[in-house]
Amino acid sequence: MTGLVLGLDVGGTKLAAGVAEPTGRLRSFLHEPTRVDEGPEAVIAHLVDLGRRAVGEVGANLEAIDAIGIGCGGPLDAERGIIQDPPNLPGWTDIPLKELIEDALGRPAFVANDADAAALGEHRFGAGRGVDHLVYLTISTGIGGGIVAGGRLYGGVSGNAGEIGHVSVSYDGWPCVCGRRGCPEAFASGTNIARRAREALAAGDPSSLAGTDVTAKDVAEAAAAGDALAVRIWDETMVVLGATVANVLNAFDPALVILGGGVTHAGDLLFEPVRRLALAQTLGPQARDARIVPAALGSRTGVLGAVAVALERKAADTAGVAA
Amino acid sequence: MTGLVLGLDVGGTKLAAGVAEPTGRLRSFLHEPTRVDEGPEAVIAHLVDLGRRAVGEVGANLEAIDAIGIGCGGPLDAERGIIQDPPNLPGWTDIPLKELIEDALGRPAFVANDADAAALGEHRFGAGRGVDHLVYLTISTGIGGGIVAGGRLYGGVSGNAGEIGHVSVSYDGWPCVCGRRGCPEAFASGTNIARRAREALAAGDPSSLAGTDVTAKDVAEAAAAGDALAVRIWDETMVVLGATVANVLNAFDPALVILGGGVTHAGDLLFEPVRRLALAQTLGPQARDARIVPAALGSRTGVLGAVAVALERKAADTAGVAA
Repeated sequence: MTGLVLGLDVGGTKLAAGVAEPTGRLRSFLHEPTRVDEGPEAVIAHLVDLGRRAVGEVGANLEAIDAIGIGCGGPLDAERGIIQDPPNLPGWTDIPLKELIEDALGRPAFVANDADAAALGEHRFGAGRGVDHLVYLTISTGIGGGIVAGGRLYGGVSGNAGEIGHVSVSYDGWPCVCGRRGCPEAFASGTNIARRAREALAAGDPSSLAGTDVTAKDVAEAAAAGDALAVRIWDETMVVLGATVANVLNAFDPALVILGGGVTHAGDLLFEPVRRLALAQTLGPQARDARIVPAALGSRTGVLGAVAVALERKAADTAGVAA
Repeated sequence: MTGLVLGLDVGGTKLAAGVAEPTGRLRSFLHEPTRVDEGPEAVIAHLVDLGRRAVGEVGANLEAIDAIGIGCGGPLDAERGIIQDPPNLPGWTDIPLKELIEDALGRPAFVANDADAAALGEHRFGAGRGVDHLVYLTISTGIGGGIVAGGRLYGGVSGNAGEIGHVSVSYDGWPCVCGRRGCPEAFASGTNIARRAREALAAGDPSSLAGTDVTAKDVAEAAAAGDALAVRIWDETMVVLGATVANVLNAFDPALVILGGGVTHAGDLLFEPVRRLALAQTLGPQARDARIVPAALGSRTGVLGAVAVALERKAADTAGVAA
């Protein structure tokens, strides 16, 4: 037992792999674009290859790897490691990812929803160290969540708990690709912040953003600079994110909410209003004691989250065998 | 060790006490009105007296009681057993209920939020037996929730998780006494169903309910009979409850949602639309596999929930000492 763990991160735009010590120290870190249009078989072949190279880079071979953790977009069956048609991985219908990776690399593999993995990664190695009750929210292309309760990942019955991006804050509001209305993801994700800004521009509202291929980052920067259209889009986004975080506090009563993902790179422009709005809407003890902080692991979140999943699930399996 | 447990239920309108075996078999069950206007000291004296009588009724004395469980309206500090100003118990500001009951009755006492207690009671003794991931929702004077995860109560960091009545489904909607907008409780609780019907009547809408002191039960019955005003109020309520249950499924991924409380006595008139609306709005595996069922413990929910809390916390304490 070397204690080394291979973490694999399967995103809609990026694959990543890294070898880490149980302390979370990354010994290697590689990534490449996902080429999702090549289909699941080809993407998984690329992932296996990336994993092998990450192991090779630390001068080890696969026998030195205790376990493999894999974070992937959900919905998925975490226990059996089967991917069930995630919106960001078209064509991945009932893909037995755990089995495919175990067959290819010959080591025990454990699969989790990517936001769940990130939550566990931040808990073990990042902004949530020492905090046993936390919720991690990623505000990125989509909005996802992961729950740590009593120091363990809270996955629910099928491993898909924490779909905070689809905990509606407006039951008769804007439509979402998931089929319901008022989902935070369909309003406040990076993709949808940009879309709303583009729609406002197309409606003829004057703005410094006119004529550009607007991203959420552009909206944040223009809002910081005082552009009226950008300020309006940003403020509306903060109201929805504030209500979303208030819902998280009232539902889960965590000590800590960690916000990560590209949109949170806006920093205080996001954290100040979200903190203020969420805490003002939250019930007694939750409002008084909860903290809302940025994620700490940055671009390594996916891989370190996958590593944390492997460490937790391996320990649980070992305890199960010993008991 | 007799295994007997005393359950105490502190509601805004009713106090109840009962002695149960660890199987959930109730050996005694007493209740009386809360007389909340007499203040916490008097109410707690009545509760202690009711508890003594419940013990006396089974021919036992207090030494035969292994533990006391107490369910009470939140917010509260479950660990320390301190009640923190629940809306249904005016004047209960930082009341050390655990300590007061232990001093009065001389047995170890454990306090939980009443909805948490009910969730655990349904899990141990009721509709949730054998189901390790469930959410209990009470739709009554207010709306509250309790979460069982991995067979244990999920209380969050301060024991106040599961405040589903204040997980907003309309961030810019109707006001709630908690200070935020769009809370399910402020629209779909029994009290608020009745209020909305009365407001519609006051606005002059014709209805068979006119001239009566309308309750939620009246609205349900008139809706079943086809009264147009009642049908509208009821249907709007079901839409909000459907969105609320969909939020619960996406957030917690339970195998089972148990609905209890007075409003659920409407039966199929409630369960049919709530099931249909909630499952249609829920993501993949949750939508396919989750069940939405009525609570099974009825009027004994509060006391049996308190009993379940005492059994769980006593076992955890014993395990902690043994470890």
